Amino acid sequence: MQPIKVYADRRSQPSRAVIIFCRYSGESDRFRGDHGGSVQVSAPHRRIQNICSAARGTLIASFVSSEINPMGQVPAIVDGRFKLFESHAILRYLASVFPGVADHWYPADLFTRAKIESILDWHHSNLRRGAATLVMHTALAPFLGLATSPHVVKQAEKLLMQSLGRIESVWLKGDAKFLLGSPQPSIADLSLVCEIMQLEILGDDERDRFLGAHEKILIWMDNVKKATSPHFEEAHELLFQVKASMLSNAAAANQTSEPSTKLKIVSKL
Amino acid sequence: MQPIKVYADRRSQPSRAVIIFCRYSGESDRFRGDHGGSVQVSAPHRRIQNICSAARGTLIASFVSSEINPMGQVPAIVDGRFKLFESHAILRYLASVFPGVADHWYPADLFTRAKIESILDWHHSNLRRGAATLVMHTALAPFLGLATSPHVVKQAEKLLMQSLGRIESVWLKGDAKFLLGSPQPSIADLSLVCEIMQLEILGDDERDRFLGAHEKILIWMDNVKKATSPHFEEAHELLFQVKASMLSNAAAANQTSEPSTKLKIVSKL
Ligand SMILES: N[C@@H](CCC(=O)N[C@@H](CS)C(=O)NCC(=O)O)C(=O)O
Ligand SMILES: N[C@@H](CCC(=O)N[C@@H](CS)C(=O)NCC(=O)O)C(=O)O
Repeated sequence: MQPIKVYADRRSQPSRAVIIFCRYSGESDRFRGDHGGSVQVSAPHRRIQNICSAARGTLIASFVSSEINPMGQVPAIVDGRFKLFESHAILRYLASVFPGVADHWYPADLFTRAKIESILDWHHSNLRRGAATLVMHTALAPFLGLATSPHVVKQAEKLLMQSLGRIESVWLKGDAKFLLGSPQPSIADLSLVCEIMQLEILGDDERDRFLGAHEKILIWMDNVKKATSPHFEEAHELLFQVKASMLSNAAAANQTSEPSTKLKIVSKL
Repeated sequence: MQPIKVYADRRSQPSRAVIIFCRYSGESDRFRGDHGGSVQVSAPHRRIQNICSAARGTLIASFVSSEINPMGQVPAIVDGRFKLFESHAILRYLASVFPGVADHWYPADLFTRAKIESILDWHHSNLRRGAATLVMHTALAPFLGLATSPHVVKQAEKLLMQSLGRIESVWLKGDAKFLLGSPQPSIADLSLVCEIMQLEILGDDERDRFLGAHEKILIWMDNVKKATSPHFEEAHELLFQVKASMLSNAAAANQTSEPSTKLKIVSKL
């Protein structure tokens, strides 16, 4: 059987969710001595188009060619002649085609599945919109040459805070280990936690300003990490490297007014 | 069997998609003399919270109580003890529980379904984000007392235009009748077309500025309308009433500088 090709970038939240799920499921398969549906993660370190282009002033080719994803985004997969983009659609698909994926990842039960779909749908215009807009319009804006405004940042902060609060009050009630009070994680846990991890890019103080007051979220993130270890940590290594390099460059920039500092950071992003 | 309660507002795009699907499926059921899973659309004319609150300067109770949807949004459904929000999750669920829904609405085939999931997921951060932000920050902003900016409007216009272009080039290739070249509509066709219909609120000139150059989109919208007639037209009647009342009030406001005009419009929204 041909391997499934995964086009992903570890600096991209939805990409990491897909990578972790692939590695985790691949690992379980090998564990059972079954190699069907093995995964080849291609070009994990290539650039994301919209991170390179604006900062450099020149457009480079799409991160993934439009042959692979007409929207030019990661993640995307190619399974033989079948191509698919959008991380949630990919996770649903992989949960179905990988052999032996435990039911809790994407439960067959109509009602439980519907509740998971509801979380996955909610994610886009709430947690993701808040967190990704915030990261983009604060930490990344200088590298993207992005025009931003206090209004946009304030709205994003508000949406992020509200989303974190709702995850706790709606889906992490009581001492739930995972969303919906489940004892095992689903693809929704993975997607949402990878999004929240992106707040690392803001630096520790800012991250804590959002997460500090949300103890349930912190415990839940740790549960997802443990349930998918060591793939979770591996997939997030690059994010912490990016964070460290942004911090050290920011510190250097504080000591000098040389404008080229920014470009050095970009070249490491 | 208890009826499924649908909490929806016909001025809300995702609500209309759910209402049309319910009516259509209910109709088909009656046609076959089967009344199982019949639908009771509750309170279709009640206000949407975020349309009333800001403009009036007072918060009214959530549109749907948090008992029904903790996010306070429409659409939401209650099926016995089972509660669900997010229109796409609801459409998937209804396609499974209504008796005799034709397969094309939410195909069982793994690959076709995955492609439909991809469209449903893409929708949130692209077509919906573009169209809904534009409508909110132009036509509705004065009634919502919403602080807006040319930057936000410009970004929304760009995203909307790009999204319309991509629907045509990616999913309406050739002379496809419906998305993915299907001869029959799916829940994705319904969701996306209801979103685009919201552009009516912008007035004919503005709507045409976006849709005029997209002939395939226009034909496709007409196909979805015909496939779900008369439920499509019925669900959109209120939208056209709102549009007419906004236009006539705007015309009146042009003739007078009386500030109370705006409030009159709000009371009709
Ligand atoms: N909703 C999509 C989001 C995909 C997305 O935003 N990808 C970003 C990286 S996080 C990307 O590829 N950006 C490059 C671009 O838009 O050109 C998903 O869940 O897959
Ligand atoms: N992604 C959701 C969107 C739901 C939504 O935005 N509903 C709006 C009306 S279109 C609403 O209820 N707004 C009231 C509020 O947010 O308080 C879905 O597809 O159901």
